[in-house]
Amino acid sequence: MKYSIVIFILVFCTLKINAQNLNNVQFPEMIRPQVRKEISIPDIPEYLTLKCDFHMHTVFSDGIVWPEVRVDEAWREGLDVIAITDHIENQPSKKFISGDHNSSFELAQKEAEVKNIILIHAGEITRSMPPGHLNALFITDANKLDVEGAEDALKEAKKQGAFIIWNHPGWKAQQPDTCLLMPMHEDFLRKGLINGIEVFNEKEYYPVTLDWCLKRKIAVIGTSDIHDITSMIYDLVNSHRPMTLVFAKSRTLESVKEAMFSNRTVAYFGNMLAGPEYLLNEIFKASVKIRSTGHSDEDKQDLFEVSNTSAIQYVIDFGSDDKLTLQPGASVIIPSNNMLRGEIKIVNLLTGTNQCLHTKFSFQN
Amino acid sequence: MKYSIVIFILVFCTLKINAQNLNNVQFPEMIRPQVRKEISIPDIPEYLTLKCDFHMHTVFSDGIVWPEVRVDEAWREGLDVIAITDHIENQPSKKFISGDHNSSFELAQKEAEVKNIILIHAGEITRSMPPGHLNALFITDANKLDVEGAEDALKEAKKQGAFIIWNHPGWKAQQPDTCLLMPMHEDFLRKGLINGIEVFNEKEYYPVTLDWCLKRKIAVIGTSDIHDITSMIYDLVNSHRPMTLVFAKSRTLESVKEAMFSNRTVAYFGNMLAGPEYLLNEIFKASVKIRSTGHSDEDKQDLFEVSNTSAIQYVIDFGSDDKLTLQPGASVIIPSNNMLRGEIKIVNLLTGTNQCLHTKFSFQN
Amino acid sequence: MKYSIVIFILVFCTLKINAQNLNNVQFPEMIRPQVRKEISIPDIPEYLTLKCDFHMHTVFSDGIVWPEVRVDEAWREGLDVIAITDHIENQPSKKFISGDHNSSFELAQKEAEVKNIILIHAGEITRSMPPGHLNALFITDANKLDVEGAEDALKEAKKQGAFIIWNHPGWKAQQPDTCLLMPMHEDFLRKGLINGIEVFNEKEYYPVTLDWCLKRKIAVIGTSDIHDITSMIYDLVNSHRPMTLVFAKSRTLESVKEAMFSNRTVAYFGNMLAGPEYLLNEIFKASVKIRSTGHSDEDKQDLFEVSNTSAIQYVIDFGSDDKLTLQPGASVIIPSNNMLRGEIKIVNLLTGTNQCLHTKFSFQN
Amino acid sequence: MKYSIVIFILVFCTLKINAQNLNNVQFPEMIRPQVRKEISIPDIPEYLTLKCDFHMHTVFSDGIVWPEVRVDEAWREGLDVIAITDHIENQPSKKFISGDHNSSFELAQKEAEVKNIILIHAGEITRSMPPGHLNALFITDANKLDVEGAEDALKEAKKQGAFIIWNHPGWKAQQPDTCLLMPMHEDFLRKGLINGIEVFNEKEYYPVTLDWCLKRKIAVIGTSDIHDITSMIYDLVNSHRPMTLVFAKSRTLESVKEAMFSNRTVAYFGNMLAGPEYLLNEIFKASVKIRSTGHSDEDKQDLFEVSNTSAIQYVIDFGSDDKLTLQPGASVIIPSNNMLRGEIKIVNLLTGTNQCLHTKFSFQN
Repeated sequence: MKYSIVIFILVFCTLKINAQNLNNVQFPEMIRPQVRKEISIPDIPEYLTLKCDFHMHTVFSDGIVWPEVRVDEAWREGLDVIAITDHIENQPSKKFISGDHNSSFELAQKEAEVKNIILIHAGEITRSMPPGHLNALFITDANKLDVEGAEDALKEAKKQGAFIIWNHPGWKAQQPDTCLLMPMHEDFLRKGLINGIEVFNEKEYYPVTLDWCLKRKIAVIGTSDIHDITSMIYDLVNSHRPMTLVFAKSRTLESVKEAMFSNRTVAYFGNMLAGPEYLLNEIFKASVKIRSTGHSDEDKQDLFEVSNTSAIQYVIDFGSDDKLTLQPGASVIIPSNNMLRGEIKIVNLLTGTNQCLHTKFSFQN
Repeated sequence: MKYSIVIFILVFCTLKINAQNLNNVQFPEMIRPQVRKEISIPDIPEYLTLKCDFHMHTVFSDGIVWPEVRVDEAWREGLDVIAITDHIENQPSKKFISGDHNSSFELAQKEAEVKNIILIHAGEITRSMPPGHLNALFITDANKLDVEGAEDALKEAKKQGAFIIWNHPGWKAQQPDTCLLMPMHEDFLRKGLINGIEVFNEKEYYPVTLDWCLKRKIAVIGTSDIHDITSMIYDLVNSHRPMTLVFAKSRTLESVKEAMFSNRTVAYFGNMLAGPEYLLNEIFKASVKIRSTGHSDEDKQDLFEVSNTSAIQYVIDFGSDDKLTLQPGASVIIPSNNMLRGEIKIVNLLTGTNQCLHTKFSFQN
Repeated sequence: MKYSIVIFILVFCTLKINAQNLNNVQFPEMIRPQVRKEISIPDIPEYLTLKCDFHMHTVFSDGIVWPEVRVDEAWREGLDVIAITDHIENQPSKKFISGDHNSSFELAQKEAEVKNIILIHAGEITRSMPPGHLNALFITDANKLDVEGAEDALKEAKKQGAFIIWNHPGWKAQQPDTCLLMPMHEDFLRKGLINGIEVFNEKEYYPVTLDWCLKRKIAVIGTSDIHDITSMIYDLVNSHRPMTLVFAKSRTLESVKEAMFSNRTVAYFGNMLAGPEYLLNEIFKASVKIRSTGHSDEDKQDLFEVSNTSAIQYVIDFGSDDKLTLQPGASVIIPSNNMLRGEIKIVNLLTGTNQCLHTKFSFQN
Repeated sequence: MKYSIVIFILVFCTLKINAQNLNNVQFPEMIRPQVRKEISIPDIPEYLTLKCDFHMHTVFSDGIVWPEVRVDEAWREGLDVIAITDHIENQPSKKFISGDHNSSFELAQKEAEVKNIILIHAGEITRSMPPGHLNALFITDANKLDVEGAEDALKEAKKQGAFIIWNHPGWKAQQPDTCLLMPMHEDFLRKGLINGIEVFNEKEYYPVTLDWCLKRKIAVIGTSDIHDITSMIYDLVNSHRPMTLVFAKSRTLESVKEAMFSNRTVAYFGNMLAGPEYLLNEIFKASVKIRSTGHSDEDKQDLFEVSNTSAIQYVIDFGSDDKLTLQPGASVIIPSNNMLRGEIKIVNLLTGTNQCLHTKFSFQN
């Protein structure tokens, strides 16, 4: 049977009109399905890999959406955990918006339950540099953070049990030519008033801060800092919003907090991941499989299949000019040779300011 | 030169990190371009074809976005004209939102200028059936519509020069089994208090109302009635939100108003257009071209190229079993025969409750 | 930090030109990655789920591509097994093509090894109805099938160990108004000369044949019968070519043959699967998970998350008007109620000519 | 009316099965529409802009498809003109392919008529360097080019009226470290035996050759040199194959030939165009419009709308750090200032080896 169609039929919608009543014809197919799309990043031994965004705004500060939208976006995008971090000190729409610093959290809470999203009570302490902007997570009353001194606000947050993140340390509005750890930050770090740093914010990466986090053993954080609508800012079809991966013992608020204070976090932005070497290595091992095909090529080289079951695109450097890009959910077949057995660099897994993961393939039978 | 690549390189992002400073590496390519995408629907002789949405909500009634978002969405989606129609009588977020019935218009106005969107001052008069919900467009003070009687509200709107649309007449919450023109609507029509009817709202089509509009010579309207975010509800990549096409003498507020009171409107939803026959015929003629290729097929039939330069997908019925779907921006080649010369039906151009456009191709040289 | 970009930069390509030599600037990013995309259909207890296409053509009969293209397509599309089934009796390009009936198999064999695709030696016995067209799989010499009588050809195939499929039994060119099992087919079935039937071919479904297969316990087959290029005929981004799922003990030629003779096959076309009830039930159970979220909605109903980890879109009928579409890789949250506990129908899993799968959810902790 | 759907219905295919007969249910919607997608590049004053690919292979040399596939691909992709250029001297499948050097042209001719594609009779003269590979277009008998000396072959082509292109001059297999115009090429240029040069081939750009063409006033050529299937190599959804734009007086073989000998050609690859300055300027002017919106921003700057109606993505450099990317079919609004009135550089319009177009906006009323 040979295919040869010139004229082609597609008359669903119109047929439907005839087939049904004339009062009200429904076109549910015009509406996009309201579903959650999971992000395929594997769990690692002992831990669940939770996808988290710890920085976002609503109309209760300088954002443009109602709080429940942040939950709904997170659900659709496959996130597990979010914190709404409206500015304590910056509320340009105040003339039209009443409520207090806890309102956005309270308004989002019911939707978070319905969508099974872990919602962290939070707020953004917003100052000029130093110390700049800091997010206090896991608080119980944001109104009490509305005090004069930055350090006083942080200490109040700590009293509530907060995990505190220094936001966008290299933001040009506050550090136009530099990204410095100032004496006040050193002081806060010593006092335990900074527990993590955003190495990535919105579309900016601050490479120097990755070593800061890793050497001081505080959490590596990546966030969207979304004010707008995520789908208008990020390409959610082919990519994802910037986020933090948290490696937690269970999918609960308490476990997330424990994991963050234990520094088990990785920033995920574009096709890059930045964080502790051992975590990146586990993710890579859980994502990429290599095995013999049982066949060989014309040069008698054994052929191996390298498969990537994750949503992460890996770029593998074999040490010479040979680089291999492993697309999400795809596999390639390559001839065995020494390079497959030797050390490889994973160019997009950043283990330090100037460093990426060095590892080896684990061959499967 | 024969192509044979096994290993493939894509290392933009990562290369970039090395190439630049370590304080702040920008990834503008992670952010979607903020641009307007034009909808290719041709103008017709004497008139510009303006894309309009006359029904939408913000946090100032039961919507979930700040007013300027509605302008920004409209700009991105290639619309020319919008009306924000917050309910006069339904404001579930009142506890947190202050301002009056004009606030959403006023807050969107500056953004409308910056984005060159024509913003119509409007409000939704929201009652149980009859008369149901009605949008008053081109008003000057929405606060004055906040009166007890529905007819009084409409008369006040009229005093301000309003164009009034009866919204979703067949909505199941108000007419579960029917879509009736009730005596009160007849009365309002006689008094000029209804100037158009939504034959399409969100995802619902009320076929019976199309004849009502065409016979009474009032405007055929299609709207999104968006409360949510348009990109989450509609597939804006492959399709568009429901809208009204207005055939105006110029791209001004006054021309839009003149065109609507002159009944030069068409509802556009999915791949369907509903409205007066002469307008649909002009759009079809401006969209679809047919011309001889100068060649013939194996059966000595002349071959003709049929091209569709518009964004509308046309389904052409040649009267037998033969149907042709003309995709947006695409062309097909078909053998000449009697069917090309005879009457054709355009299945997706609705000229009445039970009727579609009958027309003929105009052959080009 | 609030986002507000008007001007946007994307200058990779052009920057590159300056950065490199003027002799030869490579743009590997212009070339699509040459990768295999796995189709996510879960394995079932005891068996691997292999994706197979048993019907396709090359320039060695009336196809338009060189044999190795069929292997390459299959690899990209995530198939595991193919049979090239060039017509024994129909070779319109004979004037330009030499070789014999084994040539296409032989030419594709090396590529099959390199791409790790299981390639079945096969040929299509091509007669007018009855018996119509039949594919002989797992043969050793296609030239010997080039004999006068259809039954003689089939018997020769059997001598070589063939599995024989009756192709497109309801093809309008051979059965314009019917799809009848003729006496000759009854005879062949009795003699074991037909071991499976195509219930789906290219874009045609023959519902009546599904019961024939299930009652006689022969294999249910779906194929592309591709002559053209698969990516031009099927939407490989959002869907897949028609295929047969084979449930095999291992990924070897022998296991595929064993599974087919044991009738462990399902036809997969569009979002439909057709085959034995127990196999469809296993696939559904391995694809869809349901679990409590631990939360409840405003009406105190417990909320459950239903997740679909497969590439198959399931349409679940709860017995009333309520239908649920579960998209690939997506999940929804729905309130618990009796309908979740009762019998459900999976509308797109066809267990008979007029029947679909009836099953129940297995709740997880 | 507020949107709140949890359960979503999409049951087209399955409904269909019940609605129709049980012998043969057609799913035409499973098959991709077989249509031509036009490439929106505007015509320029006096000339039509024809999209052409002058370099491609079939099974009659080292390609993998039957000749008519090349016509069908071209038609789908919106091309107007192609030349099939099978190697005269390289036919790896000779064991299975008979016919002569004219066969691929002859086999594609009928399909070219049916699809209204202008098919140029051609062949590739294939030698080691110098002179390398050369395509002879507009020939009448490819068999006569099968002679020993390269110059003799070119002279024979010339006798037939050929336009001769030097292919991929910087191909690393022939010029690994360089891209040199050798004495033999100088000689051929003097003798009129080279009439154009590929500045782009497949995925390679040879910047140095652009100046060669422009200074010697020979045609700038870009080609795919496709051996494989175009849709597998290039992203035809978001981009296009490499091609040559020819500015012709009419859409005929003769006009194409006249235009090429008159050097009215531009290479188009990715989002780059390379060729004579006056042609690139005309394309830019016909693609991009700028006009006042009549509004101004908060700083009292007039706002202008810049629209791109073409399929080309333009990158505009305003001379400082400000760059603007104009996406296909999109527009942006930017504040008027001196930069809009001054000289602009169009970074992706290459007017020389180290040069891009310098131009100015023409403001519209």
